Amino acid sequence: MEKLKKYVSARDEDQFYHQGAVELLVFNFLLILTILTIWLFKNHRFRFLHETGGAMLYGLVMGLIIQYATKASDVESGTVYECEKLKSGRSTLLINITNQVYEYQYRREISHHNVNGHQGNAMLQKMTFDPSIFFNILLPPIIFHAGYSLKKRHFFRNLGSILTYAFLGTAISCIIIGLIIYGFVKAMVHLGQLKEWEFHFTDCLFFGSLMSATDPVTVLAIFHELHVDTDLYTLLFGESVLNDAVAIVLTYSISIYSPKENPNTFDAAAFFQSVGNFLGIFAGSFAMGSSYAIVTALISFMLCEFPMLETGLFFLLSWSAFLSAEAAGLTGIVAVLFCGVTQAHYTYNNLSPDSKMRTKQLFEFMNFLAENVIFCYMGLALFTFQNHIFNPLFIFGAFVAVFVARACNIYPLTFLLNLGRKQKIARNFQHMMMFSGLRGAIAFALAIRDTESQPKQMMFTTALLIVLFTVWVFGGGTTPMLTWLQIRVGVDPDEDLKAEAASQSASNPDKNTTKAESAWLFRIWYGFDHKYLKPILTHAGPPLTTTLPEWCNPVARLLTSPSAYGDQRKDDDTDYIINNDELTENYESSAHIPVRDRTGSTQATGKEDIHEGDLGLGGYKLQLEHTAHQPQMNSLA
Amino acid sequence: MEKLKKYVSARDEDQFYHQGAVELLVFNFLLILTILTIWLFKNHRFRFLHETGGAMLYGLVMGLIIQYATKASDVESGTVYECEKLKSGRSTLLINITNQVYEYQYRREISHHNVNGHQGNAMLQKMTFDPSIFFNILLPPIIFHAGYSLKKRHFFRNLGSILTYAFLGTAISCIIIGLIIYGFVKAMVHLGQLKEWEFHFTDCLFFGSLMSATDPVTVLAIFHELHVDTDLYTLLFGESVLNDAVAIVLTYSISIYSPKENPNTFDAAAFFQSVGNFLGIFAGSFAMGSSYAIVTALISFMLCEFPMLETGLFFLLSWSAFLSAEAAGLTGIVAVLFCGVTQAHYTYNNLSPDSKMRTKQLFEFMNFLAENVIFCYMGLALFTFQNHIFNPLFIFGAFVAVFVARACNIYPLTFLLNLGRKQKIARNFQHMMMFSGLRGAIAFALAIRDTESQPKQMMFTTALLIVLFTVWVFGGGTTPMLTWLQIRVGVDPDEDLKAEAASQSASNPDKNTTKAESAWLFRIWYGFDHKYLKPILTHAGPPLTTTLPEWCNPVARLLTSPSAYGDQRKDDDTDYIINNDELTENYESSAHIPVRDRTGSTQATGKEDIHEGDLGLGGYKLQLEHTAHQPQMNSLA
Repeated sequence: MEKLKKYVSARDEDQFYHQGAVELLVFNFLLILTILTIWLFKNHRFRFLHETGGAMLYGLVMGLIIQYATKASDVESGTVYECEKLKSGRSTLLINITNQVYEYQYRREISHHNVNGHQGNAMLQKMTFDPSIFFNILLPPIIFHAGYSLKKRHFFRNLGSILTYAFLGTAISCIIIGLIIYGFVKAMVHLGQLKEWEFHFTDCLFFGSLMSATDPVTVLAIFHELHVDTDLYTLLFGESVLNDAVAIVLTYSISIYSPKENPNTFDAAAFFQSVGNFLGIFAGSFAMGSSYAIVTALISFMLCEFPMLETGLFFLLSWSAFLSAEAAGLTGIVAVLFCGVTQAHYTYNNLSPDSKMRTKQLFEFMNFLAENVIFCYMGLALFTFQNHIFNPLFIFGAFVAVFVARACNIYPLTFLLNLGRKQKIARNFQHMMMFSGLRGAIAFALAIRDTESQPKQMMFTTALLIVLFTVWVFGGGTTPMLTWLQIRVGVDPDEDLKAEAASQSASNPDKNTTKAESAWLFRIWYGFDHKYLKPILTHAGPPLTTTLPEWCNPVARLLTSPSAYGDQRKDDDTDYIINNDELTENYESSAHIPVRDRTGSTQATGKEDIHEGDLGLGGYKLQLEHTAHQPQMNSLA
Repeated sequence: MEKLKKYVSARDEDQFYHQGAVELLVFNFLLILTILTIWLFKNHRFRFLHETGGAMLYGLVMGLIIQYATKASDVESGTVYECEKLKSGRSTLLINITNQVYEYQYRREISHHNVNGHQGNAMLQKMTFDPSIFFNILLPPIIFHAGYSLKKRHFFRNLGSILTYAFLGTAISCIIIGLIIYGFVKAMVHLGQLKEWEFHFTDCLFFGSLMSATDPVTVLAIFHELHVDTDLYTLLFGESVLNDAVAIVLTYSISIYSPKENPNTFDAAAFFQSVGNFLGIFAGSFAMGSSYAIVTALISFMLCEFPMLETGLFFLLSWSAFLSAEAAGLTGIVAVLFCGVTQAHYTYNNLSPDSKMRTKQLFEFMNFLAENVIFCYMGLALFTFQNHIFNPLFIFGAFVAVFVARACNIYPLTFLLNLGRKQKIARNFQHMMMFSGLRGAIAFALAIRDTESQPKQMMFTTALLIVLFTVWVFGGGTTPMLTWLQIRVGVDPDEDLKAEAASQSASNPDKNTTKAESAWLFRIWYGFDHKYLKPILTHAGPPLTTTLPEWCNPVARLLTSPSAYGDQRKDDDTDYIINNDELTENYESSAHIPVRDRTGSTQATGKEDIHEGDLGLGGYKLQLEHTAHQPQMNSLA
């Protein structure tokens, strides 16, 4: 340790940051290349390699370059760090203590380095990020944006199905994958491949849960570009967003399952503890995220005149939701998801038009960057991660398991749902959903979180391969698949809704038969939300003075915004509310979305929407038609 | 070290991040409080405590709370980290190795902890950030935004004066402060206060250079709000932005001045080495930043249809400018400043209107957040920094020095400039500039960068106190001062220009007498820029086919954008160009800035502009008048 003191100086610190700058620069250039390639592909309508696949490819290439170009400088001589008997390559001489941090963080890898005789140099080590970067920096913006840009109308219409797929479906998928993998593990043990490894059923379930997180970002982007049927989009999107949340909490709950005796036995106490943990964390994160959004909604009443303050507050409170959940031992990402949904539902209405735009664009931008970084990084990790364990049998088993589990998830559940839905999910939709079970960032991040033991490393390697395969092959095959399954494209989401509403009213004079998912639960929620929550938390909706009982009037008058009085609705006509209110909200928001029609560009505006993924906050292409409508909307906020 | 291994586990890692989340959360709440307070003040037109002062105040209060509330948990018992004989408080038991990083990073403080018998606990230590956070994360967005939002017209008009104040003025200020401080140091030595300290003249110059970086952000915000005379705004803004760059490089150049013999003698070789270092770093950073901006300009030709890709590319290339400069051993902040200026000058014209807005808003937002974080942090540092050295004599001397140096900077230089300027800088402007010499983020960041020795700690304490004082007292006194000096407010910048241009043409039929700063150098630059650079790098300006000689025609046709043909100018009429082109650019950009006039708000839009600080990219309030003008501008980009 005495040697250490010599090296600690300002210059060493500078070189440390210099090195950091170089690495970030390399990453920057990868992203820039990715963006230019995306542009090239989009210009030529080349849909077989989407940007996520492209980012992964560049990451892969860079990983190859780093792996083979920097091996030459891998020198064993230099200061030997005596404590812990860890060896450092020459490039880590400069700042030994900091390098010790790296060695701590990658201790799990490095200890195996010594076992296997590997030497990772500093750059390689640094390129294999601390997994917390995913959960603390890269994933939150992506998940928040997913929540914030949820298309509310279609989402609530299909809420039951989405919840079913997300909870029940993920559980089924987890168990099926666990079982199949367990079978393969038993076979591997029988073949003598896993000597001295501890691979219990819980580990298989752990793998199952992390592999159940779907990430059809590629598919959805293509859906959005081609304007595929909105219900299909919503089902896939909603399922993906919620099953990410479920998978994260489930993975954690499984990992804390620690039965007192043999881990292979079923311990009821430990099982229920895990279940309780799951429910507690999920509900707690939901509550935390929603609370912050509600606070934002209440505060944003005041700040309309100052867009920058509004945007700043919005951002900080949403970020605080994440941090509070993390600090409270809950899951920040789940909290941030529900925060985003709630912000879109309440706070968005309170923002000034300028702030609506600013917040939307800010999170879109962060989402765009973060997503490309993650996929780039996934490609990189294939070569820079030092402890891959490629086991062909396990990999094959995992592919089989994932495929079978997806089928067991989609088809039976859809059958059950279709018994209750008025608008059935068609067979070709089911096939498309089956096909769209891509894995991505969440599966990767969950797998990389713990690569301490060899089973975990094997799982990580396998998960990464599945991600690469599904994104490239299934993502690339989306467009042909759409054609083959004859799924209609070029659908205008709001026109679609209006047409359905019109035909519904025409064929069903009885107001009580509304859309498929307007089950009684939904209608109760919608009524409550519309009569009480929205008036309190936003400017919109019927004034509280009309919806609350008489004796609440003083309080109601206090809590009602003046502009809500101009927004009377028949408060017991849920149909009217459902059919018109959400649509009107779309009018309102689209009326204030500016300048797209001023670009002078004669291109289909769909092209500009490509990275928006934002179906819930107003259709850009609709603004020309709608700016003349609903003049009173302009006075809101 | 053997003890360490026991503590390394996933749970420890979780707690480490838990702790990090708590600290970030505390900071978040501080910022949220700051935003709410700003809103309160703005609502009541309370201009005596501006947001920067408010952020500092909250930071101060939080620092007090942390200092006294957490002292109780400061326990000496616990694991003693034997290596380096460093002691850790109980709260650092959890993750000893990580704590060692902290102890490394704050080694300079901690070694003094042991000398002075101090104990800092982990939270206090963490709250005193690694200074690199400033230079790598917080300052770049602020500086880039300053460059990107420069009001080009007025800036170039006053370019000579701005450069004079920035270079010559900073040098004068540095020397004067150095001399006065040296006098006080000599007095302190005489009084026996600085036994065993090494306080050379170079250290005094170092202090002088870091204290020469002015940061009138508070004053400028008030100027902007009240629409003070634009020339005054521009002089102050331009001087501040450039003297930050000069101070940073100067500080570094001084710190590497290492004469072979006694540091107190003048070593010509070392001196010229420092000078060469200064010029090299400054010019190199300038070149690096501008190159990236030029690359962005050339690439952005292609990406007009995809705002998200454009914005992403813009952001990444600008960030790469910073990283490349850092990696090359230059100064990232100076690079990013000139990158911003160049981006505003060329790339901005190529962006689609959507991207113009997105980039502008993105950097505004980042600037807003970063600035409030820095000022909050400055307040915090008064109590959380563990090695303050309050020396009344030094502090008094520093105040005197700063005041005198500002006077020696402003008045003599203005006198010299006024000999050459047609539009003299009036006496009351000079007084206001004298008054507006606030210190802020740059001085603080430069001082905190090295607090290893006791002289440096004393300098840091003093610098911090000067920052606090000038921001609160001078910042708060800006409005009364404006009144007292009878400086006009409520000036419309572009009307101002048009009126001047009109009166100029009326009184001076001879085209060659344009504005004061249209010195021959400026006219040469302007002609060159307008005829050659702009056509190559943007869509605007006369086509290259007209400006280049005949034999260049093939190349010219290749490089000229079709839309440039519609933009013919008399290419030898610099007056026309100067008077109309920049103004037309303002028209062009303001014609595409949307929706402010659609809010239905009848408030003076000045209120919404408060945090924009963006005088160079189109006046929001002008859009109503100008949308009817220059229809051909709409076809550009």
